[in-house]
Amino acid sequence: MTASVIENLKVVIVGLGLIGGSIARGLVAKQTGARVVAVGRNEAILQKALDDGAISSYSTDITQACKDADLVVIAVPSLTVKHILKELQPVLASHTVVTDAASVKGEVIESVTEVFGCVPENFVPGHPIAGSEHSGYSASSADLFEHKKVILTPLENTRQSAHELVQNFWELLGAQVISMSVKHHDEVLAATSHLPHLLAFALVDTLSRQGESEEIFRYAAGGFRDFTRIASSDPQMWHDIFMANGDATITVLDEYIEGLYRMRTAIKDKNSDELMSTFIRAKKSRDIFLEMFSAKRK
Amino acid sequence: MTASVIENLKVVIVGLGLIGGSIARGLVAKQTGARVVAVGRNEAILQKALDDGAISSYSTDITQACKDADLVVIAVPSLTVKHILKELQPVLASHTVVTDAASVKGEVIESVTEVFGCVPENFVPGHPIAGSEHSGYSASSADLFEHKKVILTPLENTRQSAHELVQNFWELLGAQVISMSVKHHDEVLAATSHLPHLLAFALVDTLSRQGESEEIFRYAAGGFRDFTRIASSDPQMWHDIFMANGDATITVLDEYIEGLYRMRTAIKDKNSDELMSTFIRAKKSRDIFLEMFSAKRK
Repeated sequence: MTASVIENLKVVIVGLGLIGGSIARGLVAKQTGARVVAVGRNEAILQKALDDGAISSYSTDITQACKDADLVVIAVPSLTVKHILKELQPVLASHTVVTDAASVKGEVIESVTEVFGCVPENFVPGHPIAGSEHSGYSASSADLFEHKKVILTPLENTRQSAHELVQNFWELLGAQVISMSVKHHDEVLAATSHLPHLLAFALVDTLSRQGESEEIFRYAAGGFRDFTRIASSDPQMWHDIFMANGDATITVLDEYIEGLYRMRTAIKDKNSDELMSTFIRAKKSRDIFLEMFSAKRK
Repeated sequence: MTASVIENLKVVIVGLGLIGGSIARGLVAKQTGARVVAVGRNEAILQKALDDGAISSYSTDITQACKDADLVVIAVPSLTVKHILKELQPVLASHTVVTDAASVKGEVIESVTEVFGCVPENFVPGHPIAGSEHSGYSASSADLFEHKKVILTPLENTRQSAHELVQNFWELLGAQVISMSVKHHDEVLAATSHLPHLLAFALVDTLSRQGESEEIFRYAAGGFRDFTRIASSDPQMWHDIFMANGDATITVLDEYIEGLYRMRTAIKDKNSDELMSTFIRAKKSRDIFLEMFSAKRK
């Protein structure tokens, strides 16, 4: 893994939020030698990034910025991806590799197919698993992707050189890159990310509907704070995710609700054995997860 | 608030786990001048606490230790409280104040009533909201109760001097003490603590039932780790809590499941407005909670 892979390449980052901003800062910190151009709508933020030294230049004109790009990274909210693709379609050079960072890959593939008529060989769908309940350029950091996983979901016709470029790009930023199918990605993420966010949003919402919600929150402790941290995430982003990955989320949500009813029955029947075995199994699984999680950060 | 309130008093801590151990360490750290005697079954742990200087002495004979105590703090798992009360009943002196630390107060009141025939005037039910996913004496610390809330649920006949002693005791340890009714305590805790724990146990259990659970955990990120932290809590303790506070937990669980179905419908119907308004409302509530939580720790 060397910086030379993208040295002197023109990398255009479309969208300078948490992800785009962190990519820009990371590329500078790693001294990759890439020429990084940011595209966005908010000129104050673009200028801030330029002042920070996070980018080489910026533009509010996406077609102008991308027409001679070597790599375009689309880092905008999921539902804005299609709009960006439409602007890119007429100007993309045949050598330009394009990737994205959206959380739901099935929908991106649909959008690309709709706009391009097929998925171009040099389009490599990607998803950095590096979210945060904070958003925007101000929350970005050079090491956001260090030791994080990035999942790529190349298609059968994806050009290998494009796949490799995008893989190397993320590895330069410190990430561990895995490739899998689009469908599998969306199912795994529904279970590990989309469902937990839904549960946290629902819990806070349920409690805040109670007449005495302020008092209830007053007695909540650290466990509640951690449990609901993800409910502070960007509503627009999560709206887009559930609009895009509804089917996979509902499948795992239904399994979860079934599990809740099992526990409800065990509590109602004071079924001591069932409660103990469930809690022991859950603690064991969670402790195994924690070990894996700690191990991968070493 | 001065240390003199319990200076020279004999304080017996029954059960030297996370809570009991932290009380002992806290009383020493605050130089309260109390004579702290620990009662437990595991002599190695008791000896360790003596070596640590956390207690003045220890005993494995509860009746012997408690018969001339000024304050007895019962800090054993919920379902063991009744057993302890039975042992205490014949030997308690009339001046001895008794309190407990169990998470469900309704059940403690039932146990006390069953054992004593009524709730004695000098019994002050209490609950320090200072849990952790770690348990046992080894996880205890002198500052566990600093800036934490302790809820007392005195009854109509509770002697005011007993109530005050227990309140002062917890304040000495750095806690903020609030009093409320038994029923209200159990409802609030069902919503803010028991339900979230149930949801986390259920999530980890649902995922671990999936064939590819190891792979699923592999791609889980920080949000999942935080969301499920409480699923690593002590299974026995949580078993006891759900056995004891089943009705209140089921009430709020049913409201929660209703909320999940509302969100399921919104996702299925791609009801953009409903999703956005729920997420915005949840984020707002959660951010307000976070402010309250930060403020109370200052």
